Amino acid sequence: MTYCAAIRLKDGIVLASDTRTNAGVDHVSTFKKLFTFGVEGKSFFSIQTAGNLATSQAVIKKIERDITDNNKQSLYRQNNLFDIANIIGDYTTLVAKGSQAKSMRQESGFGSSFLLSGQIGKSAPNLYLIYSEGNCMHATEDTPFLQIGESKYGKPILDRAIDYDSSINDAIRALLVSFDSTIRSNLSVGYPIDLLVYHKDSLKTPKGVRLDTDDKYLNVIRNSWSDGLLDILHGFDLPPDDYQH
Amino acid sequence: MTYCAAIRLKDGIVLASDTRTNAGVDHVSTFKKLFTFGVEGKSFFSIQTAGNLATSQAVIKKIERDITDNNKQSLYRQNNLFDIANIIGDYTTLVAKGSQAKSMRQESGFGSSFLLSGQIGKSAPNLYLIYSEGNCMHATEDTPFLQIGESKYGKPILDRAIDYDSSINDAIRALLVSFDSTIRSNLSVGYPIDLLVYHKDSLKTPKGVRLDTDDKYLNVIRNSWSDGLLDILHGFDLPPDDYQH
Repeated sequence: MTYCAAIRLKDGIVLASDTRTNAGVDHVSTFKKLFTFGVEGKSFFSIQTAGNLATSQAVIKKIERDITDNNKQSLYRQNNLFDIANIIGDYTTLVAKGSQAKSMRQESGFGSSFLLSGQIGKSAPNLYLIYSEGNCMHATEDTPFLQIGESKYGKPILDRAIDYDSSINDAIRALLVSFDSTIRSNLSVGYPIDLLVYHKDSLKTPKGVRLDTDDKYLNVIRNSWSDGLLDILHGFDLPPDDYQH
Repeated sequence: MTYCAAIRLKDGIVLASDTRTNAGVDHVSTFKKLFTFGVEGKSFFSIQTAGNLATSQAVIKKIERDITDNNKQSLYRQNNLFDIANIIGDYTTLVAKGSQAKSMRQESGFGSSFLLSGQIGKSAPNLYLIYSEGNCMHATEDTPFLQIGESKYGKPILDRAIDYDSSINDAIRALLVSFDSTIRSNLSVGYPIDLLVYHKDSLKTPKGVRLDTDDKYLNVIRNSWSDGLLDILHGFDLPPDDYQH
């Protein structure tokens, strides 16, 4: 499985993806699930992937080829993130249906989902979730973050800690906690984490950073979070006696 | 959906179930998902249910009828919790298959899963998860808690806070946080929560307590937890600058 999350804030976009891919327990690998594109001064795009790895990779290849060949569908020729979300959606269903048609089995998991973040020129940065069915939804000020893959373990902390006005630093810290909680609860999501911060209107593709278990800051967060939670829990008054009747 | 969790500790069993049932957004009801049985001085059993409500209720009816009629399969005639888990598993697949056979549709969600906790005489208390397929697994000292239904949102806090040697009070507090996190992140799980504490070797069926949003202690936990988490997050050092390159 996979866990990817992206947060669209008033000051920019913070996103992270884990890197574990597995096809059965004996076959656990580390693959990149976060791809960036952009033309400095003009645009920035990030695409995160979850689901069937063959489908995800084929979709990314198509997107790369469109850019190289300067096709009509090239990311760099679109004026609107929504149109790009639809192109990705179309490619996904096309690839998945193609694999399904060739498959010997009736039901198969060829679907992939994507998070598309980006900014084109002076338009506002935006963030889309593209479902394996090919349709899409975007983040709003009320719901500033979107997740794909194993999203449930890490959702409560984002629900509690993040809104549209949160700072980029708060979003980084909450995302790291969200990933650590997911990784502790589910073996199929694993370190390292790819983290990327895009500052609004910078129109520049950030390098991003890969955080492994030897990252100093990540370890401070992991340990102090666990210790802090237990401190809160043990600091609560004892439950009323009648809870145990 | 539903969320039920049970923790088997060295001193006893702590368990909780939410009470929301929904069959589409326009039909949200409150039904009991936690059932207790027992003969004082001899045995205590609790059964928590998740999944198809018709199937769950039919299985509970069968169990009640077995007790009333003093059938061979009556809970009170078994000497081992494992045998009871298998009886529940058999009833579940029987009921679900019966509903499936009558259904007009090929694929339907008639499955239910169960948590069975209890103690029979001087044997050690135990806790089983019975899958909708009819098979079962039990809690261990390494994995002291089991969950059914919408289990992922509330798993990280239990992973971090609970082990077999935790006190009953710690388990209550962690369970309440686990439920509050789930309820905040998922509309289909809702208050009130049914909470029940069984003390090892008491061989007495506890009354349990139903906690709604007006419960004073529950509200202390809910508010101080959220505040405490944000305090920890904001108390972390700022992320290194190179995270944003």
